[in-house]
Amino acid sequence: MPSRPLLLNADMGESFGPWVMGMDHEVMPHVDLANVACGFHASDPDVIRMTVRLAAKHGVRIGAHPAYPDMVGFGRRSMACSAEEVENLVLYQLGALYGLCRAEGVSVNYVKPHGALYNDMAREPEIMGAVMRAILAFDPGLPLMTMATRDTLAVRELAEKQGVTLWFEAFADRAYDSEGRLVSRRELGAVHHDPEVIVDQAVRIASGKPLVASDGSDLILAADTLCVHGDNPESIAAVKAIREALCRLGAEA
Amino acid sequence: MPSRPLLLNADMGESFGPWVMGMDHEVMPHVDLANVACGFHASDPDVIRMTVRLAAKHGVRIGAHPAYPDMVGFGRRSMACSAEEVENLVLYQLGALYGLCRAEGVSVNYVKPHGALYNDMAREPEIMGAVMRAILAFDPGLPLMTMATRDTLAVRELAEKQGVTLWFEAFADRAYDSEGRLVSRRELGAVHHDPEVIVDQAVRIASGKPLVASDGSDLILAADTLCVHGDNPESIAAVKAIREALCRLGAEA
Amino acid sequence: MPSRPLLLNADMGESFGPWVMGMDHEVMPHVDLANVACGFHASDPDVIRMTVRLAAKHGVRIGAHPAYPDMVGFGRRSMACSAEEVENLVLYQLGALYGLCRAEGVSVNYVKPHGALYNDMAREPEIMGAVMRAILAFDPGLPLMTMATRDTLAVRELAEKQGVTLWFEAFADRAYDSEGRLVSRRELGAVHHDPEVIVDQAVRIASGKPLVASDGSDLILAADTLCVHGDNPESIAAVKAIREALCRLGAEA
Amino acid sequence: MPSRPLLLNADMGESFGPWVMGMDHEVMPHVDLANVACGFHASDPDVIRMTVRLAAKHGVRIGAHPAYPDMVGFGRRSMACSAEEVENLVLYQLGALYGLCRAEGVSVNYVKPHGALYNDMAREPEIMGAVMRAILAFDPGLPLMTMATRDTLAVRELAEKQGVTLWFEAFADRAYDSEGRLVSRRELGAVHHDPEVIVDQAVRIASGKPLVASDGSDLILAADTLCVHGDNPESIAAVKAIREALCRLGAEA
Repeated sequence: MPSRPLLLNADMGESFGPWVMGMDHEVMPHVDLANVACGFHASDPDVIRMTVRLAAKHGVRIGAHPAYPDMVGFGRRSMACSAEEVENLVLYQLGALYGLCRAEGVSVNYVKPHGALYNDMAREPEIMGAVMRAILAFDPGLPLMTMATRDTLAVRELAEKQGVTLWFEAFADRAYDSEGRLVSRRELGAVHHDPEVIVDQAVRIASGKPLVASDGSDLILAADTLCVHGDNPESIAAVKAIREALCRLGAEA
Repeated sequence: MPSRPLLLNADMGESFGPWVMGMDHEVMPHVDLANVACGFHASDPDVIRMTVRLAAKHGVRIGAHPAYPDMVGFGRRSMACSAEEVENLVLYQLGALYGLCRAEGVSVNYVKPHGALYNDMAREPEIMGAVMRAILAFDPGLPLMTMATRDTLAVRELAEKQGVTLWFEAFADRAYDSEGRLVSRRELGAVHHDPEVIVDQAVRIASGKPLVASDGSDLILAADTLCVHGDNPESIAAVKAIREALCRLGAEA
Repeated sequence: MPSRPLLLNADMGESFGPWVMGMDHEVMPHVDLANVACGFHASDPDVIRMTVRLAAKHGVRIGAHPAYPDMVGFGRRSMACSAEEVENLVLYQLGALYGLCRAEGVSVNYVKPHGALYNDMAREPEIMGAVMRAILAFDPGLPLMTMATRDTLAVRELAEKQGVTLWFEAFADRAYDSEGRLVSRRELGAVHHDPEVIVDQAVRIASGKPLVASDGSDLILAADTLCVHGDNPESIAAVKAIREALCRLGAEA
Repeated sequence: MPSRPLLLNADMGESFGPWVMGMDHEVMPHVDLANVACGFHASDPDVIRMTVRLAAKHGVRIGAHPAYPDMVGFGRRSMACSAEEVENLVLYQLGALYGLCRAEGVSVNYVKPHGALYNDMAREPEIMGAVMRAILAFDPGLPLMTMATRDTLAVRELAEKQGVTLWFEAFADRAYDSEGRLVSRRELGAVHHDPEVIVDQAVRIASGKPLVASDGSDLILAADTLCVHGDNPESIAAVKAIREALCRLGAEA
């Protein structure tokens, strides 16, 4: 058993103006951490305000979910931003979210970059360093959420050197390769749809048991938090089932 | 003589991406307050960062200069935003600027809405109330800058009721009507270009002496700060001349 | 009976990036005219392309649905744009839609301004004139869709003088005042929800029979087209019911 | 001597809202082709209108200068757009420019992608193909401007297969490597500043004489047009000097 429970995090506040995305009201009661879009890939000041209020009501901790400036591409398209640009756009978004948190009496508790920025950060130490500098400047106590993979030594060393706390994130509904990287969505079997498979993977991650990687090898992921989704009724049901399974696991411990 | 000196404020950080606006480096050494654009009518995270760094270097206090979301119109076009929208967009911009201030070891010291939002706020108590709520939520100690007119009783009562400090702003290079409102730029003589006239108007405002309104009547404006410009060499020269005249005035006092 | 049938028009292509709005696939088969958003209040190049393709497939005529530049406000907030700005932003949007129409072998057939621009145009002859100049420059054969009211003499005279064809639009699901203006949505009874009431109003408009205005007076609206909606299953059902009733009316004639 | 004269092209219409960029009025009289920004990396409907009017006045042919959607990055940052997205965003921008051309009685005469899109297109056949499909759909007669390099066989074959005319572009003020690619701006000597060197390189390109590449080898570039700049007085002077030299060359022929 891990010393601390596996926290559930979900992307929230991804509506924009008149466009609604996600079932935030349904998923909020069942998660620990809300990754709130900050207006660069989704959200706007009014949506952020409502999302922060909803999180506060349910005692859910709020994380900044900063992204590249690309609404139409939803922050999913890699952009050739310099490290300095990344540092500043993370600071801008962190602060903007903080501004609306002030109005609801809560604060920003962690940072999880979104989409292409999340992926680029995991691949390029320059971008990772830029995100870390933004965090250190804003509030050195904020953990940075990043991918749990098989071997996280390099990023842990970088984080330790910079003085940033890391939270490692795993996925219950995605297949992993032997290095602990997500299998591309273009591959067959990349995304799990069977609730039993999803809950089993969540329990394995939570209890430190190995997953079976795409090449058949055992894969152990050390994770602090599990990414869940609130897109549709099926994903909400999966969140509830994961939550119950993790509670049982905690009770048994 | 007023009990406290008249502070000089100027709009700053109005560049955007590759586009440069304003001579911030030239005007910064000569002002007390920098109204920093927050990314809705001008500026971007990199420009804000540089502007905040420049202000910090010169010991100039930083104010948020929030606006309607209208880059192409530079925030000068009135938009039919609801009070709630205004409250949230001010909080977003305040926070965003604060995020970049954190990285330069300074903070946001006051709020001056920009362009059409500044004008709409002066005209519509609902909008003024929304801006005040944003300030109170973010940091109740931040003064709100608004137009000095002949009779400011209504806004002072509203501010007192809400618990917001007001800073009244006057203009040395603009003609006033008898109510203390700016004469429209479309009218002849609305803008003063003669440096002597500008300095004289600044000194009158600073020393509590009356101006001559557009109808010939005397107009006394109680102002805390004077708006100056850093657009071109002429306006920079005017700022220096005003600064010197106000210093002499202070020395005489 | 009117000499030509009442065409059904609906707003389409209002999705944006990852955000879906409207049931375009369901409503498209039942309308004559698709008002396609042009990227200023909704839509993007990919959404426009798909919408134009869908319209082409169903033989539905395509209209440009230009708006103020305000995605987050969905073009519903009036903006103080100059007549020149309006003329140019309509031309830009018209052309952009035309560009994507070229790729699907169709063309732009008419213009219906959206939201606040539609309302401002009806209220301010300067804005109406600017929209007309844009149409004349782009293609003088394109009709301009505007509100049918009780007395349309002024706008008909302006259109005739400029050489622009008008298409008058009426609503089956909205209450009218005695002048033939829409009752504000804030008023009780402003929007009809009963399908029978909606179909009855459609048939009255189509056959030139009077409606009952909000003050109880008779109101005759001379309309070329009826605005219908594809937002949800109820509105789709209403469109089909209106279509059937108008077909019966045509058969009886 | 080449059979047709080397045309001079310059980027134009790169102002945005209140921000001015480029000395379009000064450079327009001295070029043949104006690459007009279409609102995705620079420009807006009013700027486009003015630029098109200016080009029309001087009889300068207008080209669309489409870009990735990135104002703050000025279209200089590569974005991971799909081929389909590129095709549609080029069509959108082409059409938008066409809309404003209609109002000035001129048309779009060619297409030159901007910045990162120009570079990505040269590197990735998928992107090149997408731009070509957009051109073919809009108007198959429009030439596509792309980099002249030492060996252009692959792109000429692709263009011939698709039925698109190519215009090859060379630079008088940039150093080339032996493959005919621009030396990176980060390298010393990448940009020529000496007017004599610039004019000499222009004349060599125009007359089919070899340049000296960065490794000392001879480089012959077959070019249809030369990119010139209107950013500042020095570049305007260079344009005039190039123009005069090319005229003398033509007279001698």
